[in-house]
Amino acid sequence: MTFEEKTLETQMIYEGAILNLRKDKVTVMEGTSYREIVEHNGGAVIAAVKDDGRMIMVKQFRKPAERVMLEAPAGKIDAGEEPMSAALRELKEETGYTAGHIQKLTQMYPSVGYSQEILHLFLCTQLTAGETAFDENEAIDIEEYDIDVLADMVMKGQIQDGKSQVAILMVKQLKDAGQLPTG
Amino acid sequence: MTFEEKTLETQMIYEGAILNLRKDKVTVMEGTSYREIVEHNGGAVIAAVKDDGRMIMVKQFRKPAERVMLEAPAGKIDAGEEPMSAALRELKEETGYTAGHIQKLTQMYPSVGYSQEILHLFLCTQLTAGETAFDENEAIDIEEYDIDVLADMVMKGQIQDGKSQVAILMVKQLKDAGQLPTG
Repeated sequence: MTFEEKTLETQMIYEGAILNLRKDKVTVMEGTSYREIVEHNGGAVIAAVKDDGRMIMVKQFRKPAERVMLEAPAGKIDAGEEPMSAALRELKEETGYTAGHIQKLTQMYPSVGYSQEILHLFLCTQLTAGETAFDENEAIDIEEYDIDVLADMVMKGQIQDGKSQVAILMVKQLKDAGQLPTG
Repeated sequence: MTFEEKTLETQMIYEGAILNLRKDKVTVMEGTSYREIVEHNGGAVIAAVKDDGRMIMVKQFRKPAERVMLEAPAGKIDAGEEPMSAALRELKEETGYTAGHIQKLTQMYPSVGYSQEILHLFLCTQLTAGETAFDENEAIDIEEYDIDVLADMVMKGQIQDGKSQVAILMVKQLKDAGQLPTG
């Protein structure tokens, strides 16, 4: 039996640049408890697949992991921005590519136990190369990999970014089903 | 070019029950910046597949999403606990099942932009049913689904929990490759 937790009190602990943290007092089955909840505006994730079947990936240092990660292009959604617009904007900024075709893949809660963050995953195809427009202080390498190679890297634990694992395996499923709209 | 951000100062903002929040001042390409970082002890995620090919899923209310989510069994790793031990413990607690075989699938950073959390994904097979031992105030429904059905649900956006999307699609890949060690 699932139980809906109702909020009795909410306390804002921190309001920051990319996230807020609050603590909610909630009803549970027997009495009350507390939930620590990260507020986040959400992000857009882009599986960008070229006509030759290669997918565009980015490499960047990630402070929480203290290492460089290989990831699908992604970025935060600005206030009031549509997820699809954010996806096209971030793809252009981080990789220089513009997409002739975009379709929603899915959305994901990366850490539903404590975070409200929702990531919106899109498939971008019919790509045209252009100039990047990195945000100030973004240090990003762009790389291309065959989808089968990426899927193999996910299966071998060589790609550990969650949103990228989902994006790659979804694209792999579409490819194997003959449903990838590439040229 | 990837750039390693070095920590100049760190400020603990909040120390809580399941997470801490800190703010690091770091070096970036031109000067300094701040990184808001969630500290989390990590978790274990279990893809539990029965001999008949059905996978054990749990349904529970998730306060950050304000709705019931269908997820793979999972739980926080206790201090000093091995991820594999946590996986077997959580599988037993949440579903009642014990596993005759366990193997690591991968690990994932669910929100590498702002969280140190690492999830360790395991495949559990040769399952034996038993009694559950829910944590106090866990309200969980247990359900079973065919792997192909779950993969289809992921592809249709009907499963939106990130760790579960990864676990399901990895098991689907293994199944399609004939590498699933079920009876």
